[in-house]
Amino acid sequence: MSAKAKIGVLGASGYTGAELVRLLLRHPHVDIGLLTADRRAGKPMAEVFPQFAPFDLPTLQALDAVDWPALALDLVFCALPHGTTQEVISDLLKRAPAMKIVDLSADFRIADPAAYARWYGHPHGAVELQKKAVYGLTEIYRDKIKGAQLVANPGCYTTCAELALIPLLRGKAIDPDAIVIDAKSGMTGAGRAPREEMLFSEVSEGFHAYGVGNHRHMAELDQEFSLAAGRDVIASFTPHLVPMNRGIFSTIYVRGPKAAPEDLHAVLAKAYAGEPFVYVLPFGKLPQSRHVRGSNMTFMGVTADRASGRAIIVSTLDNLTKGASGQAVQNMNLMLGFPETAGLEQVAMFP
Amino acid sequence: MSAKAKIGVLGASGYTGAELVRLLLRHPHVDIGLLTADRRAGKPMAEVFPQFAPFDLPTLQALDAVDWPALALDLVFCALPHGTTQEVISDLLKRAPAMKIVDLSADFRIADPAAYARWYGHPHGAVELQKKAVYGLTEIYRDKIKGAQLVANPGCYTTCAELALIPLLRGKAIDPDAIVIDAKSGMTGAGRAPREEMLFSEVSEGFHAYGVGNHRHMAELDQEFSLAAGRDVIASFTPHLVPMNRGIFSTIYVRGPKAAPEDLHAVLAKAYAGEPFVYVLPFGKLPQSRHVRGSNMTFMGVTADRASGRAIIVSTLDNLTKGASGQAVQNMNLMLGFPETAGLEQVAMFP
Amino acid sequence: MSAKAKIGVLGASGYTGAELVRLLLRHPHVDIGLLTADRRAGKPMAEVFPQFAPFDLPTLQALDAVDWPALALDLVFCALPHGTTQEVISDLLKRAPAMKIVDLSADFRIADPAAYARWYGHPHGAVELQKKAVYGLTEIYRDKIKGAQLVANPGCYTTCAELALIPLLRGKAIDPDAIVIDAKSGMTGAGRAPREEMLFSEVSEGFHAYGVGNHRHMAELDQEFSLAAGRDVIASFTPHLVPMNRGIFSTIYVRGPKAAPEDLHAVLAKAYAGEPFVYVLPFGKLPQSRHVRGSNMTFMGVTADRASGRAIIVSTLDNLTKGASGQAVQNMNLMLGFPETAGLEQVAMFP
Amino acid sequence: MSAKAKIGVLGASGYTGAELVRLLLRHPHVDIGLLTADRRAGKPMAEVFPQFAPFDLPTLQALDAVDWPALALDLVFCALPHGTTQEVISDLLKRAPAMKIVDLSADFRIADPAAYARWYGHPHGAVELQKKAVYGLTEIYRDKIKGAQLVANPGCYTTCAELALIPLLRGKAIDPDAIVIDAKSGMTGAGRAPREEMLFSEVSEGFHAYGVGNHRHMAELDQEFSLAAGRDVIASFTPHLVPMNRGIFSTIYVRGPKAAPEDLHAVLAKAYAGEPFVYVLPFGKLPQSRHVRGSNMTFMGVTADRASGRAIIVSTLDNLTKGASGQAVQNMNLMLGFPETAGLEQVAMFP
Repeated sequence: MSAKAKIGVLGASGYTGAELVRLLLRHPHVDIGLLTADRRAGKPMAEVFPQFAPFDLPTLQALDAVDWPALALDLVFCALPHGTTQEVISDLLKRAPAMKIVDLSADFRIADPAAYARWYGHPHGAVELQKKAVYGLTEIYRDKIKGAQLVANPGCYTTCAELALIPLLRGKAIDPDAIVIDAKSGMTGAGRAPREEMLFSEVSEGFHAYGVGNHRHMAELDQEFSLAAGRDVIASFTPHLVPMNRGIFSTIYVRGPKAAPEDLHAVLAKAYAGEPFVYVLPFGKLPQSRHVRGSNMTFMGVTADRASGRAIIVSTLDNLTKGASGQAVQNMNLMLGFPETAGLEQVAMFP
Repeated sequence: MSAKAKIGVLGASGYTGAELVRLLLRHPHVDIGLLTADRRAGKPMAEVFPQFAPFDLPTLQALDAVDWPALALDLVFCALPHGTTQEVISDLLKRAPAMKIVDLSADFRIADPAAYARWYGHPHGAVELQKKAVYGLTEIYRDKIKGAQLVANPGCYTTCAELALIPLLRGKAIDPDAIVIDAKSGMTGAGRAPREEMLFSEVSEGFHAYGVGNHRHMAELDQEFSLAAGRDVIASFTPHLVPMNRGIFSTIYVRGPKAAPEDLHAVLAKAYAGEPFVYVLPFGKLPQSRHVRGSNMTFMGVTADRASGRAIIVSTLDNLTKGASGQAVQNMNLMLGFPETAGLEQVAMFP
Repeated sequence: MSAKAKIGVLGASGYTGAELVRLLLRHPHVDIGLLTADRRAGKPMAEVFPQFAPFDLPTLQALDAVDWPALALDLVFCALPHGTTQEVISDLLKRAPAMKIVDLSADFRIADPAAYARWYGHPHGAVELQKKAVYGLTEIYRDKIKGAQLVANPGCYTTCAELALIPLLRGKAIDPDAIVIDAKSGMTGAGRAPREEMLFSEVSEGFHAYGVGNHRHMAELDQEFSLAAGRDVIASFTPHLVPMNRGIFSTIYVRGPKAAPEDLHAVLAKAYAGEPFVYVLPFGKLPQSRHVRGSNMTFMGVTADRASGRAIIVSTLDNLTKGASGQAVQNMNLMLGFPETAGLEQVAMFP
Repeated sequence: MSAKAKIGVLGASGYTGAELVRLLLRHPHVDIGLLTADRRAGKPMAEVFPQFAPFDLPTLQALDAVDWPALALDLVFCALPHGTTQEVISDLLKRAPAMKIVDLSADFRIADPAAYARWYGHPHGAVELQKKAVYGLTEIYRDKIKGAQLVANPGCYTTCAELALIPLLRGKAIDPDAIVIDAKSGMTGAGRAPREEMLFSEVSEGFHAYGVGNHRHMAELDQEFSLAAGRDVIASFTPHLVPMNRGIFSTIYVRGPKAAPEDLHAVLAKAYAGEPFVYVLPFGKLPQSRHVRGSNMTFMGVTADRASGRAIIVSTLDNLTKGASGQAVQNMNLMLGFPETAGLEQVAMFP
């Protein structure tokens, strides 16, 4: 009991906050010591998410009212809106300089301040801190994450596409100039702040694309794909919304300059052999998003396109788990020296 | 490790089978030693439910081909279709006389053979065995279940309504002649065998009642309500289908002959104080089905109707978990001497 | 062309506004001369509802900016929020004293100012005007509607329940003290103004009750049921939300003091013989909400409950059509002397 | 009345059959004279599709029992399963040689018997008849359709993609070797015959691809794209299933060898100027499937990809209307000399 780490969740009233609490409540090595939610400060967590009513959880409090030294947290998850997070974390580290942080916002994902400014429309507010941040795509940057104080947890779309494409780009197995990522997301990816286009009646019984040509996750894709390929890569990327709650499903069209589709499959199968949270299906089989729901798994499959020289890759994960809070816990496990799978053993829930 | 109990699931290719496997895979005290599915015999479980691909599970086999002595199972869950189960279990107990069994079908729920014959249209095929069966509504029959060899796991609708009404009927707190149960179920309650009326396009974007006036769960309700009241009780009960996967939601209209709505709430709050899987909301608050999804919890609430002397009770649970496989594991825990909550600690998954 | 009536829609950016436009665009005897939407003034209707892009429609304008005399409208539909409408209509009638109005808000539905004040928490702001308003339940008040200047279109829940129960109460066929209406609604009934509890992820994959014990539609039910019975009637009424867009589905539990369930069916079948928009199924059959979707139909069915002396009635309609805009057009047809079914012949769309 | 054409629907118990009846019931120039459904022969249409209960429709009959000379139909829609239709139509034309036919199956869509045999796995059974069949993509083959006796109505995926791409390929505006069509369909496209993978619980709350690399609609795409381009074209085409009822949504990735994205838009805008059922959005705007639901419209949009030289085109339609039964009625209108839009003026139903 006394050996458990003490953890905080900043922004506990959103969906990624709730998912963190779901996972942390059953984590064998942590206790939840702090939950913040500015607009709901003073309320019990069960008022915001009634599924937690049977559990004993800290009352929601305002971020400004936190007594950091008294709490003596080991790590906080920062699930606050993009843009505001830079300031919050800078300030937090002044008050609690040894605090470890996993940030689920986009604020520390882009290493290059110029690229950040271009995509987000304003200069980065914590450039020095940015230099220390480690990009938290666990399977790719595991060693760096172990020693990091600040981990920038990747986006849901980007985790899904990058896990599939980074090994192929590193291995020069595909043409970097002919990548098409047609991505589909469940609605929880849009968060819990009410807007007309997120109402049930605007979303159900239909399908649409959004952010075409300028979705901010492109900045992450460009950064990681270019790093992996050793040259500039700009992929076509179109996000869509599916009338479902959870899931990212990416249909990825690639051309192997020399590599056959079977070779691409072999690259991925080798890259992820032994990984607990990435499962590569047998060649020719493609996964469904529902079969990873609620788990921290990424399922991916490779098949040949009938047009010669082309292959189709499908990668899928739960946007709230491996695409956000699950990967955040996975990173916490590395940062605090726990087994990487601790608290993440939930089996996918289908149906 | 060696101390783990060895468990079988008969009928693993249906939804309750999959839910049993989801729960048992993470149960600390059991190993899965057998999975049967006649029509899919010889296939890996991952072909039937791809979410299990990352796990090491027994290959599906035909029931007839099972070598019971060699397997030496401690307990089997029987998730086979209603009607066929009587014969299967009779036969099984001849081959493995000490086997413990939790039956998820309706075959052993009705204690009175005449009532069984009336509701099911044919005489019961194992009347002697029926006498030994214990009705597995855990919170009500916990002590009997501990010593049972054969537990008849209750239906999903009935668990939901009985947990709410049995304490009130036992306490003479409501009029037994004025009970209306308007029940709504998610689609997994209808099983996985394809029928036209279960297709996505027949179910989504609409709502309907079914089995009005003659749903077989009424036999269970009559039996348990009459037992609780000490006299014959026939409640109005109408099941409906909701375009969702999981959840039973019962809106129950009662009249308290003398008791005020607050008194009804007090009866339920007292009955379930300390129960790990029943949570009674504060008076005047009503639960939502989504907040118990994937968990073994029942949430219930009581509020006053504006018509004087009437109260409205809402009871909700996940039909695959507390309504079927979760309660089955809860019963197994009692039968095998494990902590009652073992393997059932999943927090509800919302959203 | 010149003989067509000129129609306005106040509040065209909400769902009932869109449904009015859908119907009016194909109405043979009207032209749409005005669409207002204060917050979207100056925008084309296609920006608010892209399905109308191929049609030639008036630009949205602010209500204050309308030049009533110049427009010379024959009738306006008022689809504005409850509470604000009294003032708007009082003011409108000062500027255009001969204007006919169908009001889709709740503002003029309650004849008794004291009842209005009790349910809505403030005194009625146009008591004189209220006296002239006719309650627009078409099949029941057809003759009065023909001569009305101001019609108060009923609520969706109330239309559904009242069409089923008024003939039975008028005929003394049921016990007025034992009515239970368990009502379920699709999400469009909640309107288009964004609130957290209407987000896709809050609504899908679950079921819940709301407004239990104090939903404002109860005021209408009390008024109309009491009128029909010739004495005070207070029915139990519980509204629920279904994860679907369109549809009201009411499961109604009644006791016939003397009448058998078959007699109740006969009363309804007789009451609605020849009605174009009410279809009574054969005795023992119950309708589904999806089979009236997009049409102006109400389907209703009566069956016996197994408890003797009780019957179950199901009534269902599309909340945006017969439950709001369709019935509004039906009333307009009467007020302007058109055939009652003009513009309302859409066949239900299933699947 | 006497001037109305008399129409039959073969296969009226499926979804395209129901959609034909929905449209034909309100068509000003036709009467429905025959509805067949072999397995439901003798039943009223209302038993198969209860939404039609208020209408007077012919009883379903078996195809073999039809007395063709006595009925004297002007045209039949053939909505029978693929494969069986060749024989049915050959036989039908022997009995009623002047009958006009719109076939909604795939049996007569592929002009080249060798291509048919390759894709469908068996030789075409009516090669002579195939030569007379006209491919019913109305906007592209309008003149031929007017004089045809047998029209092969295109598939839903193919109508959606071909309307977008044929003008661009004809105009040499895009590279024929770099077309990627990522297509998504609602569930009604899978028909009404029950299979496990179409159950609500298998489809909702998830997303998946199917038929990757060998979907039969590819045969149509190859035929029409190659015709339009004047050379062989093999596009990448991946169909997916969306948890919704109606809608095809195609995200199409193209490269213009010289043409800028704005030029592609101009080609489409020009091609469809004046077309009643194709609406091209302003450049840079993309449509949503829900905004064409229930209508015969195709909405399409073009936007620039951020990778230079690439454009993204979205084309969307209702798979049951413009993707099947609506286009079939559109073709009937041409074949029988009615206004092309007769009976097809339904405004899309959103929400």
